[in-house]
Amino acid sequence: HRILHQLHQLVQIAPRRVHFNSFVSRTKTCGELRSCHVGQEVTLCGWIQYQRHGLFLVLRDFQGLTQIIIPQDEASSHLKKVLCDAPVESVVRVTGLVTSRPSGQSNPRMPTGDIEVKAKTAEVLNSCKKLPFEIKDFVKKTEALRMQYRYLDLRSFQMQYNLKLRSQVVMRMREYLCNLHGFVDVETPTLFKRTPGGAKEFVVPSREPGKFYSLPQSPQQFKQLLMIGGLDRYFQVARCYRDEGSKSDRQPEFTQIDIEMSFVDQAGIQCLIEGLLQYSWPEERGPITTPFPSMSYAEALASYGTDKPDTRFGMKIVDVNDIFKSAELGFLQNALNMPQGTIQAICIPQGAELFMLHICAFPSQQGILHFILRPDGTLKSPVSRFLNEKQKSDLIKAVKAEVDDLVLLAAGEHMEVCSILGKLRLETADLLEARGLALRDPAAFHFLWVVDFPLFLPKEKNPVELESAHHPFTAPHPSDADLLYTEPAKVRSQHYDLVLNGSEIGGGSIRIHNAKQQRFVLEAVLKEDTELLSHLLEALEYGAPPHGGIALGLDRLICLITGASSIRDVIAFPKSFKGRDLMSNAPDYIVPEELEPYHIQVAWPTAQAEVKTN
Amino acid sequence: HRILHQLHQLVQIAPRRVHFNSFVSRTKTCGELRSCHVGQEVTLCGWIQYQRHGLFLVLRDFQGLTQIIIPQDEASSHLKKVLCDAPVESVVRVTGLVTSRPSGQSNPRMPTGDIEVKAKTAEVLNSCKKLPFEIKDFVKKTEALRMQYRYLDLRSFQMQYNLKLRSQVVMRMREYLCNLHGFVDVETPTLFKRTPGGAKEFVVPSREPGKFYSLPQSPQQFKQLLMIGGLDRYFQVARCYRDEGSKSDRQPEFTQIDIEMSFVDQAGIQCLIEGLLQYSWPEERGPITTPFPSMSYAEALASYGTDKPDTRFGMKIVDVNDIFKSAELGFLQNALNMPQGTIQAICIPQGAELFMLHICAFPSQQGILHFILRPDGTLKSPVSRFLNEKQKSDLIKAVKAEVDDLVLLAAGEHMEVCSILGKLRLETADLLEARGLALRDPAAFHFLWVVDFPLFLPKEKNPVELESAHHPFTAPHPSDADLLYTEPAKVRSQHYDLVLNGSEIGGGSIRIHNAKQQRFVLEAVLKEDTELLSHLLEALEYGAPPHGGIALGLDRLICLITGASSIRDVIAFPKSFKGRDLMSNAPDYIVPEELEPYHIQVAWPTAQAEVKTN
Repeated sequence: HRILHQLHQLVQIAPRRVHFNSFVSRTKTCGELRSCHVGQEVTLCGWIQYQRHGLFLVLRDFQGLTQIIIPQDEASSHLKKVLCDAPVESVVRVTGLVTSRPSGQSNPRMPTGDIEVKAKTAEVLNSCKKLPFEIKDFVKKTEALRMQYRYLDLRSFQMQYNLKLRSQVVMRMREYLCNLHGFVDVETPTLFKRTPGGAKEFVVPSREPGKFYSLPQSPQQFKQLLMIGGLDRYFQVARCYRDEGSKSDRQPEFTQIDIEMSFVDQAGIQCLIEGLLQYSWPEERGPITTPFPSMSYAEALASYGTDKPDTRFGMKIVDVNDIFKSAELGFLQNALNMPQGTIQAICIPQGAELFMLHICAFPSQQGILHFILRPDGTLKSPVSRFLNEKQKSDLIKAVKAEVDDLVLLAAGEHMEVCSILGKLRLETADLLEARGLALRDPAAFHFLWVVDFPLFLPKEKNPVELESAHHPFTAPHPSDADLLYTEPAKVRSQHYDLVLNGSEIGGGSIRIHNAKQQRFVLEAVLKEDTELLSHLLEALEYGAPPHGGIALGLDRLICLITGASSIRDVIAFPKSFKGRDLMSNAPDYIVPEELEPYHIQVAWPTAQAEVKTN
Repeated sequence: HRILHQLHQLVQIAPRRVHFNSFVSRTKTCGELRSCHVGQEVTLCGWIQYQRHGLFLVLRDFQGLTQIIIPQDEASSHLKKVLCDAPVESVVRVTGLVTSRPSGQSNPRMPTGDIEVKAKTAEVLNSCKKLPFEIKDFVKKTEALRMQYRYLDLRSFQMQYNLKLRSQVVMRMREYLCNLHGFVDVETPTLFKRTPGGAKEFVVPSREPGKFYSLPQSPQQFKQLLMIGGLDRYFQVARCYRDEGSKSDRQPEFTQIDIEMSFVDQAGIQCLIEGLLQYSWPEERGPITTPFPSMSYAEALASYGTDKPDTRFGMKIVDVNDIFKSAELGFLQNALNMPQGTIQAICIPQGAELFMLHICAFPSQQGILHFILRPDGTLKSPVSRFLNEKQKSDLIKAVKAEVDDLVLLAAGEHMEVCSILGKLRLETADLLEARGLALRDPAAFHFLWVVDFPLFLPKEKNPVELESAHHPFTAPHPSDADLLYTEPAKVRSQHYDLVLNGSEIGGGSIRIHNAKQQRFVLEAVLKEDTELLSHLLEALEYGAPPHGGIALGLDRLICLITGASSIRDVIAFPKSFKGRDLMSNAPDYIVPEELEPYHIQVAWPTAQAEVKTN
């Protein structure tokens, strides 16, 4: 069994042994020294985190902190001067002897807290001028200052942790896809052609007058073409672009884990993604269980009022139509008489006090009725006297209200009623948590597949016309395939979204592989000009295999895993919400001569036009 | 030792087991069936490669080819019809029984050649219309046709092999960097600010009037800022952009393996790259040995006439100054009297016949003298009579000429003489190989570091001014650091190029980490406006560590590994040499309304301007 133990070590540990000191002039990082190193001479390189009284300093590198003892004897006066004169955040190389800290002085909160290094020689590799802020005060800086001095912000433990974790998760994903399941990592172009309705695509002028590339929002067309090309299993950690102007927590460039497979169905893709996330999930975040639960779009809307339900807590929407069928409130009767009319309620635990405090947060004008369950078992509400006892007690039973709970009731068109209650559910949950109620476990990860979306939605501006709920390449649900030609608005799709803790972290679909069906969708249903997609339509005629795929939003996923408050904290050099790089000041003016080769010129807005656009 | 053998298997084989059939409806790929599978019922999905006489067909997928036997009995007539009616390149799913091929009929050139699959059921998943060309004729198609129907071209074995090998090599590189040496994969922005002299950068208009992003040529600034941010070890498989207009074998977007480290010197980076390439080198290309040889820029120029010598063969440039010091040819004397004047020669084995056949290839007008060594030991040359016997025999000895060899001699300014002889060396090598002489082993990989480049070069248009030989962040050679302030033109740099078989596949340098030195280089030597780089100059003042890095050109490297004739054969969707996507027809016109949000308009060239630019 000694050999078995060795075997275990080889398999388990060998591939995880990381050589952080290869190729460089240090012998150890600042994070690795332990009692077992006592007596060794080591060379460390790092930044001076702080220095105290000329006695010791703390050296920091990307792996941790180590305490350096500054010698006090006369012979070391030069060394002492070097180390004491160097400003905070200067870069130094120190060679010294690892020693145990004097008894009682070890620091259990510091991984290297059992040892210190007695400096023998030191060299200041680069000095640091006065900082605009202290490195360790990660949370205290304003975001604009952090962005302007991003290179200093990156020295914080939290930013380095986020970026390292991101790198490791993506590496594990690659191992799973490439090494375990035979996926091929294929790079696709980012200088491409405008897609139909691609209003959010950045344009890139070319040297041909009047001709532009577009920066695509995803490699959608290319991944389908790769399947038609027989590549069978494709993935890419793909840079994508979306120009949405100013939108908080969105970036003009972002990254998705882009996947496509041939001969696969919805269950196959879901199984792949569950395995992928399980395999790449960071150990320190605890295991995740698979398969993930699944919910239809209709159920998500009915129970949570959204297509991305946060299933970490209850407070679900309850259908109370039957209770109020014969209620004498005109408001309720009017709702029930509407097409798609409905009455729905949610119960907010301990919501009574909340309601008093935040009454402004509850939009009574939007047709929301509120009820508070009094300690005496009665329901307090402005409309209480219009309801009979049976209706009140049935409502209490239906939403399982307890004393001091708040019940919110909405009546109207189904989608609208559910949406407003879904929003109130999330807003009140935040308010309850702010008051100390533990609704959502911050360490919990609730994955959920949302499926059976409609294939088309009525256009917002002209509800008689249809548009794709996701994109025009999504295949119809097999059970609804015939409806496509008769009642397209009723067709469900083979689209699936992956939701984590109420955030959409991915979405995909089985694609249309039949050229005729694709042409019907584009021409007859969507009334699109197929000219821009003629190459894809033609490709489908040359033996396109059945195929499907998915894309995971990497920035959002890493944000949720790390618990970062913004995706900007998991991106090395993010843009501000106005799309600016505050460090380099991009975008910036350029001289007209540099535009000449591209045959474009700036159309400066006139004051009048300015007003119009604002 | 049996346990040791198991251990070996576990470590070597276990991580390489790839599940190609997970998540999909097939049970096997078309490449994996062997004799051991005989008797199994299998389901295959693939394309009909061809079908013969209604008796059998060959099914192809991304893993290989399998022969399918079409049953001939009456009960199977429907199945037979399905399989025989499906056009070539249709997609089918076949379920059947694996059987041994009848004795004498196995095909040893086919990995699955010992078996065939007797079809039981089959379904045509998608039919294929008449193809514009046959899939297997990889080499015969015109490139324009291949590009227009790239999705069909991708079905060829060669293209799939190239893309798979590329994916595997990059994956191995990631394992080496991430898992073995603790590098962090950091994504850096591609929407950035224009860099000084960034004339080759595509511009991307923003929604702020007159302001543009640039697509950077490399993540150079970001990787240095990451080092200043303390990330210590960064890598990225980075998409880069360069707008060079039409240039053959260049792409407007390309990929580099981008690496940067802190506290490293030139030897450290070189050692890292040697380890990286050795680790990721495909087994089927044989092992490569390290360390790679190294050569100074001066020696490369003197011996090979180029900074990227092809060291797979000899024919080196030989200095023959001493031989002709006292020659009576005015042409030679004039050369020797020039500043940097020199006389150099190369010897082309069996070049005599070549010279007769390709006389036009040898530019006598550029001051090249030619000599042929006759079987009688005499030198034939138009200038023979101006040289004495000693000079002729010394020349023969110096270049080690043998009978029927051709000696080419050039005189003039050192750099020019070496360059022209370097070009003739490569051109004559091609000619000799076309005639069947085995000069270069096609399976050999000769790596070479070229080092000690000059830091600055005289500007071509105004040789009194200096420009960076590579880029302004390159550190001076430590031995020449003081010269920077007195004779900058003489300073060597800490830049290094990696050359493989005469192609530059990478380059990098130790960077300047001292803010004052960087400012001196930019302002005093290069006379650059430092405004565009103020963020980087400021960052260097806040404790920048010593750092350096390298970038490998992935497209070129994979091209050399696969032996592809163009980088377009190792890129899934390349652009034509005019920067066009011939499949989708990008770049393309877009309507003026779509330019409005970006405050630009097309400046249509007038006929007159057209003439000027052409």
